[in-house]
Amino acid sequence: VDTSARTAAAARNGQLTKPPGALGRLEDLAIWLAGWQGREKPKADAPQVVIFAGNHGVAARGVSAFPPEVTAQMVANFRHGGAAINQLSKAFGAAMTVHALDLDHPTADFTQSPAMTEAELTKALTTGWNAVDPQADLLVTGEMGIGNTTSAAAIVAALLGGAAEDWVGRGTGVDDHGLARKAAAVHAGLATHAALLSDPLQVLRCLGGHEIAAMAGAIARARAERIAVVLDGFICCAAALVLQRARSGALDHCLAGHVSAEAGHGRLLAALDKQPLLNLGLRLGEGSGAALALGIVQGAVACHSGMATFAEAGVSGA
Amino acid sequence: VDTSARTAAAARNGQLTKPPGALGRLEDLAIWLAGWQGREKPKADAPQVVIFAGNHGVAARGVSAFPPEVTAQMVANFRHGGAAINQLSKAFGAAMTVHALDLDHPTADFTQSPAMTEAELTKALTTGWNAVDPQADLLVTGEMGIGNTTSAAAIVAALLGGAAEDWVGRGTGVDDHGLARKAAAVHAGLATHAALLSDPLQVLRCLGGHEIAAMAGAIARARAERIAVVLDGFICCAAALVLQRARSGALDHCLAGHVSAEAGHGRLLAALDKQPLLNLGLRLGEGSGAALALGIVQGAVACHSGMATFAEAGVSGA
Repeated sequence: VDTSARTAAAARNGQLTKPPGALGRLEDLAIWLAGWQGREKPKADAPQVVIFAGNHGVAARGVSAFPPEVTAQMVANFRHGGAAINQLSKAFGAAMTVHALDLDHPTADFTQSPAMTEAELTKALTTGWNAVDPQADLLVTGEMGIGNTTSAAAIVAALLGGAAEDWVGRGTGVDDHGLARKAAAVHAGLATHAALLSDPLQVLRCLGGHEIAAMAGAIARARAERIAVVLDGFICCAAALVLQRARSGALDHCLAGHVSAEAGHGRLLAALDKQPLLNLGLRLGEGSGAALALGIVQGAVACHSGMATFAEAGVSGA
Repeated sequence: VDTSARTAAAARNGQLTKPPGALGRLEDLAIWLAGWQGREKPKADAPQVVIFAGNHGVAARGVSAFPPEVTAQMVANFRHGGAAINQLSKAFGAAMTVHALDLDHPTADFTQSPAMTEAELTKALTTGWNAVDPQADLLVTGEMGIGNTTSAAAIVAALLGGAAEDWVGRGTGVDDHGLARKAAAVHAGLATHAALLSDPLQVLRCLGGHEIAAMAGAIARARAERIAVVLDGFICCAAALVLQRARSGALDHCLAGHVSAEAGHGRLLAALDKQPLLNLGLRLGEGSGAALALGIVQGAVACHSGMATFAEAGVSGA
């Protein structure tokens, strides 16, 4: 973080034509962003939305309301501009790219064996790392992958503890039987890989997915580039949690775009010590909640960077 | 409301490429807006932000952290593009207009006599009515007026009951003494005009302000034009409350953009039966919280009106 830019932004904020603190969290957001971007007046007009897609061996265990072929079908939908994330990216001026990670080769069923080999994990992390545009002024990482809330729940349970039941949710809309199958799969995965779960990257390899690893790679790259990341829902935050557990402070450049309706997301955000900007009951993934929050960040930046000071406007102080 | 447009929008929503309900409140928002706009695919690309400014006799009682001349100074700031609401209007593509209501003639001090004459009330309501662009697809009403949180608190206390202390807040940032002076002024106003307070329009006349009445006029006009209104903070909602008490259902075309940090706003929204879209600690007025929420409405409309259906995209259902 550029502390001099942050200090300059805080000083500027105190001179803008509004009562002190009257823009609430927008003020904190703009100052925080100034620090990461290294400029007194941050920008938010060139956000990048990067979507990763992967398939999951565990989907064969009946953990999703949708069949696995939907992953590839939705990738086609992203490419043709028909998904929610396409509309939200356009609405907030974000450049959107889609990366399908070897959809014909799902991860292994993690209840039986590690989801990925070391080579597959490295490849996915690298795909994420390389997907980030260093010129972007904000990053949203989204995902698509039938079965991936089960994988994310397993990662979170491994890293934060608690029962499988604490972290599985309805995902795309499973019924009670589906929810029980999710919990059973998570429970089995934790047992199968128990010996390896003290290492966050092994957790990601054994229980994660190609697209989840790619999100982790992208979030790490954003840190290296000092690009602020708007986190999305449960799956995105599971990827982020791996980084946080691997290195303290690894998510200092991240803010929580929203809290989703997926059961464990609020508790996961609390564990990440992140306060969500939005709480609108979304549970779609694709980066949709984070993309929606881009509008809030853009509003914060517009105010901070565009407003007149008391002196410029000839307005009397309090 | 156009129920056939609303029904068509709900049917369309069920066919879009996402799990049912996965866009949470965005789905309800788009369907609701479809009903008001009378089209299956609502629009949100031509919002209007209209700002009214007025001065308050009660300001002489030390109820604000800022001197009364700030009202006119901020109007100049609006006209020169330097205020928060200018930046937010620009960020979300809203056309912004500013109406200064006779700033050289503040309302009478409502602790002593009615704030406005019948003629003044009518003039302010008419100004608001005429300020609305019938071509707008969404409306935000904002305000500026040193002393107007005291006036709004008096209106709300008169219409919802409770003690003066329940409804006064820090406004632009008064200290404990200022807060006590606000409560005393509200208490005195309620006593002075006790005989007239069963009539919502008399409440507005006796305790309100030019800009508050103008907001009420604009919100009423929007209803006549079937333009959905995004409500702002405590003062805007006090104006809206007058309409609701005058005629049940008068706010059916309104949604709550945000809940502000002003003490009574959350309870006022509950009395209006409105769930806020945002909760970000704003307490600026000017329509700023509502303007920020325009981004959420635009995101909802973009998804609803732009997404592909399962059939169009060739995606398998659940």
